[in-house]
Amino acid sequence: MTDDPPSQAADGSPGVGLVRPSDWVHDAPFPLELGGSLPRLELRYETYGRLAPDASNAILVPHALSGDHHVAGRHAAADPKPGWWDAFVGPGRMIDTDRFFVVGVNTLGGCRGSSGPLSLDPSTGRPFGGDFPEITFGDVVRSQRLLVAHLGIRRLHAVVGGSKGGMQALLWALDHPDEVGRVACLAAGLRQPPLALALNAAARAAILADPRWRGGHYLPGEGPDAGLSVARMIGHASYLSHAAFDRKFGRATVPGARHGDPVHWQVESYLRHQGEAFVRRFDANAFLRITRAVDRFDIADRASGLARAGGPAVLAVSFSSDGLYPPAESRAVAASAGANGEHLCVETDAGHDAFLLPDAGLVRRVRAFLG
Amino acid sequence: MTDDPPSQAADGSPGVGLVRPSDWVHDAPFPLELGGSLPRLELRYETYGRLAPDASNAILVPHALSGDHHVAGRHAAADPKPGWWDAFVGPGRMIDTDRFFVVGVNTLGGCRGSSGPLSLDPSTGRPFGGDFPEITFGDVVRSQRLLVAHLGIRRLHAVVGGSKGGMQALLWALDHPDEVGRVACLAAGLRQPPLALALNAAARAAILADPRWRGGHYLPGEGPDAGLSVARMIGHASYLSHAAFDRKFGRATVPGARHGDPVHWQVESYLRHQGEAFVRRFDANAFLRITRAVDRFDIADRASGLARAGGPAVLAVSFSSDGLYPPAESRAVAASAGANGEHLCVETDAGHDAFLLPDAGLVRRVRAFLG
Repeated sequence: MTDDPPSQAADGSPGVGLVRPSDWVHDAPFPLELGGSLPRLELRYETYGRLAPDASNAILVPHALSGDHHVAGRHAAADPKPGWWDAFVGPGRMIDTDRFFVVGVNTLGGCRGSSGPLSLDPSTGRPFGGDFPEITFGDVVRSQRLLVAHLGIRRLHAVVGGSKGGMQALLWALDHPDEVGRVACLAAGLRQPPLALALNAAARAAILADPRWRGGHYLPGEGPDAGLSVARMIGHASYLSHAAFDRKFGRATVPGARHGDPVHWQVESYLRHQGEAFVRRFDANAFLRITRAVDRFDIADRASGLARAGGPAVLAVSFSSDGLYPPAESRAVAASAGANGEHLCVETDAGHDAFLLPDAGLVRRVRAFLG
Repeated sequence: MTDDPPSQAADGSPGVGLVRPSDWVHDAPFPLELGGSLPRLELRYETYGRLAPDASNAILVPHALSGDHHVAGRHAAADPKPGWWDAFVGPGRMIDTDRFFVVGVNTLGGCRGSSGPLSLDPSTGRPFGGDFPEITFGDVVRSQRLLVAHLGIRRLHAVVGGSKGGMQALLWALDHPDEVGRVACLAAGLRQPPLALALNAAARAAILADPRWRGGHYLPGEGPDAGLSVARMIGHASYLSHAAFDRKFGRATVPGARHGDPVHWQVESYLRHQGEAFVRRFDANAFLRITRAVDRFDIADRASGLARAGGPAVLAVSFSSDGLYPPAESRAVAASAGANGEHLCVETDAGHDAFLLPDAGLVRRVRAFLG
């Protein structure tokens, strides 16, 4: 996902305003699906709106690759940008915080406050770094369940996520059907498609090729920044469609650039900038853990479980020009969910990142779906 | 383009057999469009078939990014693979060497025998390396014209190319309409689309991020292999469609791979292998020169020249699942050529690399186009 969320919803409403993240520590071992366990679980999260007395109005919003717990609002009035889904989450917005209690949480394995490679390993007193274990989205969802329970919520009204957040939404429906009423999965499917896997493979190779990678055992501030930046550039090149690249940059050149300069084109400058900005807020070990978890995601073989009678309603939303998770992936989600499923294909030329852009048809449909 | 051309045409014909490259030196300064000049021009080429006494049956086949002069046949009977377009060029094949005299030539700026960064700079006695100048496809086509004249050909029957070879074919038609009868441009368009430019930008960034890059002033064998390998992986991830990645690799894992290993997926292993194989036969400075020349290619503003009365016939061939140069790019070519133009969209799920795969409809149409 890009780092350019719209700064204000199309409706001009003020949004959720100033918000503050919270930290929660589950001070017990947290076992992991692929083996081993974490000595404890830390999760950073934010909430918007008010939890109903019966705790029936909670919606979990898991984030995409580079997102975090900061879904909506600003931490300070001077923040140049709001949370990554601010356009969709707020009073009167698609996820209406006048009605719903919304929870954003940084992913397990991430680097924005939740347990991940930057966390201290109590056994050594140093960050886990390259020793942080491999995770799965099953682990991520279990960590989210602990947080949800901690917040006093026995059953989520909904889980709504885009891209890898959408994959996690599907896991909620499949593995914990009694704990969620409905899930909306945007711009994702039942599995990481091999083409997306190929792009992640190239991105990881860029990190592993960086001499500062050192098998993941780099010191803070001495990590494989150059490789991580290239990895991010690869990602960005796949998030937009031809039409979006045409519109945003076309074939414009950087003023004053000479032929043969390292950065000649506006789109080249943009990607470089995105890469450099990403390095300032992301950790290479976390990037590897998370992309590997995305790549592992595959519920195709057991997706018929989504059709269980009485199971959660499943809304699969695709975007017609999404080159990473084409509409066929969402159709497969809805088909697997049988009578529980529905599919909306949003006509757009914005590419994968369309899930970050307000669209009237999308907003109307998701609002209706949320009830 | 991939490195896996079919080893034999579907028709089972023997092909052109054993072939041998030739070297030609144009021992005079060769001026360059962006400034400066080369002290002399060296071109490595191959030919297949016989030139007619009136030299009227010559077809030039410029190659794509990683191709070269070796279009068809084998250099030795034991060669594991024939030339990159062997399936299309040979007796009775799409470009019938019983009728046509076919010329393949390594691009100016390349690293397979023609003048490029690996060539010796006579003023220093060392390879040009990072001092090799920037080139354009205008330069490339002018170099091809010199070779064609050297071979005794005043007018080409046709130029037929795919991907960047297709761009060069269009330049022939636009800039030298009296010297070519018809051009076929496969899997390319009037310009490098910004999305393709973005992918090249990421690929170049991978090379420039490699500490062994040294501004291009590396010694032979000490170049930025790791960065060049990643650059190649990025390219490959864009050459195949979702369906092709599904079919070739799916989500299969490498036998014995453990979670967290650097190479876990078959598709990851394939890309790694392609990257490593590329490093053995390609030069990073050449990769940068050639991708920058591709990115510069843009004849959209003057493409109406293709419609000139009496100008060359233009066949634009697109492949329905080509994610790099979608059918709209080929439609624009044909539209610009007006009455001279025609467009064939080949229905295929193979992606950009479909231009390397024999297709009965494609073969029939191109044969008819060639007359």
